[in-house]
Amino acid sequence: MVAIMTDTSDLLIRPATADDLPAIVTMLADDPLGATRESPDDLTPYRAAYATIAADPHQHLVVAERAGRVVGTLQLTVVPGLSRRGATRTIIEAVRIHADERGAGLGTDLVEWAVTTSRGLGATLVQLTSDASRTDAHRFYERLGFTASHLGFKLAL
Amino acid sequence: MVAIMTDTSDLLIRPATADDLPAIVTMLADDPLGATRESPDDLTPYRAAYATIAADPHQHLVVAERAGRVVGTLQLTVVPGLSRRGATRTIIEAVRIHADERGAGLGTDLVEWAVTTSRGLGATLVQLTSDASRTDAHRFYERLGFTASHLGFKLAL
Repeated sequence: MVAIMTDTSDLLIRPATADDLPAIVTMLADDPLGATRESPDDLTPYRAAYATIAADPHQHLVVAERAGRVVGTLQLTVVPGLSRRGATRTIIEAVRIHADERGAGLGTDLVEWAVTTSRGLGATLVQLTSDASRTDAHRFYERLGFTASHLGFKLAL
Repeated sequence: MVAIMTDTSDLLIRPATADDLPAIVTMLADDPLGATRESPDDLTPYRAAYATIAADPHQHLVVAERAGRVVGTLQLTVVPGLSRRGATRTIIEAVRIHADERGAGLGTDLVEWAVTTSRGLGATLVQLTSDASRTDAHRFYERLGFTASHLGFKLAL
């Protein structure tokens, strides 16, 4: 896991612990798409997945904490590759902001943390996919300098 | 690295070795987008990246070999996560087919290898991004069952 970063507004972005799982899963489920995909009443699959994430040094699962309360989360994955002259890229997944904090800049803080951390890890490219229905998210990422240059394809197994 | 798979047409899909780098980089560069991004005359950055990929058990960099000749490549990354009830997803990157083999089904063989391997690794979702300009690739992935449900955002650092 990477270094903890604080800013002046009492916000702490830190590695997630197993104790954060109830708060994280509640945020994953409090979402138009997540509502049908998640099971906040049964944390068993999440505990198993957390153990796998925590054991992988290339996964950086963080939470944003304000005044002792978990209010955001994001997962950053480091992917080494051959293309683009051996570029390392990072992938942002599972960005969630607590309902009480939406529109207040926390998403920007989290993504900026991910970008800064990616640079520190030697990555030259940060990428993410966003469901086509999340038009507010698209504008958000474009404001942060991301370009919607690609289509994102998924295949459920 | 994962198990080697063969089919009946003398095709071998196997983990890439350092000796495959010249052939892989030549394919990365023989591409409308790759032409400006790669440096096939200087393999130094690719050798360093290969060492990082080979040391990460969650990266599966493979080549397709036919009659002793490297004719395709693909990288599969395993990403554990909390969302979708702790789903593990895989990400396909850097799919390249040698010019002599394009349109002959090798891309299908490689992506089907990736899907089968993903299932074997316990993944429930396979995803990839494709540059918006690669319209042939989009039709190819849709034929294989992928859905272009997302936008892919990138930020160069």
